[in-house]
Amino acid sequence: MGVNKSDLEAFFNPGSIAIVGVPTGAYRFGGMSFLEKLLESNFSGNLYPINPKGGEIKGLRAYPDLSSLPEVPDLAIVAVAARLVPSILEECGRIGLTHIHILTSGFKETGTPEGKRLEEEIISISRKKGLKVIGPNCMGPYCPSSRVTAWGAIPGLDGPLGVISQSGGITQRLTEYTCSLGIGTGKAVSFGNGAVLNSSDYLEYMAKDKDIRVIAMYLESVQDGRRFFRLAREVARKKPIVLLKGGESEAGAATAASHTGAMSGENRVWEGLFRQTGIIRVRSLDEWVDTIAAAALLTPPKGNGVFLVGGGGGNSGAYTDICIREGLGVPQLSDSTMKELRKTVPAAGSIAGNPLDMFRVFQDSKYLAEILELGYKDPSISMVIVDRLIARKAFHLPDLPDSTPEVINFLKEMQNRKPTVFTVDSEGGDPELAGEGALMRRVFCEAGIPAFPSLNRAARALANLLRWSQQVGGMPGPDLDAHQ
Amino acid sequence: MGVNKSDLEAFFNPGSIAIVGVPTGAYRFGGMSFLEKLLESNFSGNLYPINPKGGEIKGLRAYPDLSSLPEVPDLAIVAVAARLVPSILEECGRIGLTHIHILTSGFKETGTPEGKRLEEEIISISRKKGLKVIGPNCMGPYCPSSRVTAWGAIPGLDGPLGVISQSGGITQRLTEYTCSLGIGTGKAVSFGNGAVLNSSDYLEYMAKDKDIRVIAMYLESVQDGRRFFRLAREVARKKPIVLLKGGESEAGAATAASHTGAMSGENRVWEGLFRQTGIIRVRSLDEWVDTIAAAALLTPPKGNGVFLVGGGGGNSGAYTDICIREGLGVPQLSDSTMKELRKTVPAAGSIAGNPLDMFRVFQDSKYLAEILELGYKDPSISMVIVDRLIARKAFHLPDLPDSTPEVINFLKEMQNRKPTVFTVDSEGGDPELAGEGALMRRVFCEAGIPAFPSLNRAARALANLLRWSQQVGGMPGPDLDAHQ
Repeated sequence: MGVNKSDLEAFFNPGSIAIVGVPTGAYRFGGMSFLEKLLESNFSGNLYPINPKGGEIKGLRAYPDLSSLPEVPDLAIVAVAARLVPSILEECGRIGLTHIHILTSGFKETGTPEGKRLEEEIISISRKKGLKVIGPNCMGPYCPSSRVTAWGAIPGLDGPLGVISQSGGITQRLTEYTCSLGIGTGKAVSFGNGAVLNSSDYLEYMAKDKDIRVIAMYLESVQDGRRFFRLAREVARKKPIVLLKGGESEAGAATAASHTGAMSGENRVWEGLFRQTGIIRVRSLDEWVDTIAAAALLTPPKGNGVFLVGGGGGNSGAYTDICIREGLGVPQLSDSTMKELRKTVPAAGSIAGNPLDMFRVFQDSKYLAEILELGYKDPSISMVIVDRLIARKAFHLPDLPDSTPEVINFLKEMQNRKPTVFTVDSEGGDPELAGEGALMRRVFCEAGIPAFPSLNRAARALANLLRWSQQVGGMPGPDLDAHQ
Repeated sequence: MGVNKSDLEAFFNPGSIAIVGVPTGAYRFGGMSFLEKLLESNFSGNLYPINPKGGEIKGLRAYPDLSSLPEVPDLAIVAVAARLVPSILEECGRIGLTHIHILTSGFKETGTPEGKRLEEEIISISRKKGLKVIGPNCMGPYCPSSRVTAWGAIPGLDGPLGVISQSGGITQRLTEYTCSLGIGTGKAVSFGNGAVLNSSDYLEYMAKDKDIRVIAMYLESVQDGRRFFRLAREVARKKPIVLLKGGESEAGAATAASHTGAMSGENRVWEGLFRQTGIIRVRSLDEWVDTIAAAALLTPPKGNGVFLVGGGGGNSGAYTDICIREGLGVPQLSDSTMKELRKTVPAAGSIAGNPLDMFRVFQDSKYLAEILELGYKDPSISMVIVDRLIARKAFHLPDLPDSTPEVINFLKEMQNRKPTVFTVDSEGGDPELAGEGALMRRVFCEAGIPAFPSLNRAARALANLLRWSQQVGGMPGPDLDAHQ
């Protein structure tokens, strides 16, 4: 295939891959596991295991070195000991192999003079030879649509999410989590120490990818801050960038340093970055997933007014407080909405208004649909949160059928739908309830309706999406219509 | 039985109960459902349904009114229309029935002049006749050990939790949630409008109950603030009081007003209350449950140093940040701990120190136990959070047995154990993982080891418990040894 060597496409869509360092002995994580995963996923290009002894590995001919290969592969995955990596890069340079992922660790992140020296050497060779290098000390590229799934631990579901991360482990947890909600990953890159290619390179690349609609980043540091700032500001206008920063506190920064050798920079510099670029900052895995789900599935709300539906007396009051703390509003409904509402809401045992506290919405999908229509028509309402108890559990009605499919159908029919999310609360120690709740969240998300395990999390995700759209909406340049 | 009429014991341990207003027609929530639940739970005292037509209801003789009963019952549950309630109270006064729960709503919370007038009437009759009244507009008392489970929707597991709440719905969700983690409820009261008995009365009562070790409160308002303040300050020294305040924001306060007719008071007054009494403030259902679990199962940590075990590169950095934001510390381990650690931790692929980032702790219980012992011996460590991934899922090792029982056994044997909690992350849309995670959290909690669905939540719960112990530890009076 004709790979464009000037960009990163060969990492995610290579016609051929060499894996340098596939041992033939007992199974160990590394070259062999990467080869196995590529075989398992039916990668359709040529695969070349490299082992000094040659022979055959997993039914494939093994070559003693890159120079012996019958073609110059589009991508090399390097899994040899750290001290051997520079000579492999030299060899790549000689044969014109430009795209290299270095899995090996033992470089700058060790804090040793030897580790630092080896990393300097990688940088220097790459510059000299014009090599594009992911890593070292990372899991590399990942792309389900082209079966580049050497990094086998993350799910193979294609989708709108792009991931740019200095941590393989955290990318795994993120993508498994989003995948469980039906939100697949178009492309991911774990780039570890970022010695050669850095976060800006990946951001620039994913910004151009039309299939990627939300970009998740995990960064411990940024090289070339000025370029990153300019780029992020431009990209964030069109696609939400949701960033988890590692090493915010001093102690966290020390951990980051021993993880990828990064100096994570002062928090106030990062605060400025978030404020000025429109990157959405999140502070935990949960908030990351929730914000990604909201950004991937919703058009941003046009204002901050939430219609809270469901709840139950005490909950409604607490829910209102939570929304307010997140910067959302829980406005009074308009007179005409109230007039309509009062026709159906009994005086006792429920609260007509916003929040709307009504048992019936849990049982009667048609009624819930009517209530939602009222909310969509009300000018003070910009989004809706429905507290979706699992009714047959919460109200001890074991025979009540699950009305989720009906609710979803009603929602799909509504042309005037405003951003609407559900909360399905099932986080305790009841395995049956937890299983049902998880499934319900997935069914909603797969239908394009975000669902969260708690109101706190729903409110935070909506607030993050709203803030983003307000922030980038106020910036000069292309408007939000570019998104979705 | 000899009920002490001067206190609240008859509500929770009555020898006989009359239910005023048990209709014989089609099932409706109210008197009939309360009667059914008492029958189902084998309440051993006398039960008297009251219906003007007399006859037989559910195999029990129904009486036309309270005055016709063969004895004066210890407790009356009143479920007649609001306008009839005053005359029932008059009748109670005449026959010497002192303990009354008014289920009926339609009083002050309606905001109507008629509702307010009726509530005033209840107050006035109760004062005149010396009646103790729970309510109106509430689910009333609940006590699994004496089978007072008329309020059938909440779980029947006895335990160390006392609940004082202005919301029945929120109490249900709280107790179902804690029950799913094996933490039962000793006594609960949903007291709605609190027209006669108020939060201070219940707090005073539960403070004396030796079996209740943690008190959960949901309040929208406080009557007699001075008494509540004095009492809370005294009680909080001995038992953690974990309070969710409804109606914190202006909009939330409006919701509360329509829920129980409460004026929720200014936020700064509440802030002062929390600061000066040592009541633990929580702001969501999740935080409430988490803090209760920590308070019920742990001795408070002696300092703020956390040992973070588990994680995985990127996660560890983010985890450290989360702990720091919660006011906890993630200190460096002592030289001697580090010396011991380095004997077992390989240089690459893991981070020796705090956080400790090691794959092996997920697979090898004995090794995890050794690591924990090191943490317990380290003077800078006051508590431990173990990030307990479900290893066979997270690391794609389906055949790996669950080592939780072994881990629990090791922990139980450790005499020098410091407060130790687990996080079991399983909140996405994967029903199998969610079910396994929920079960694992329950198994840990049932063994006395709190387990949370995320590190954020673990850190917040520990920080709340620590702040409480530091706050009340600095107050004059009895010390914390009274707790556990």
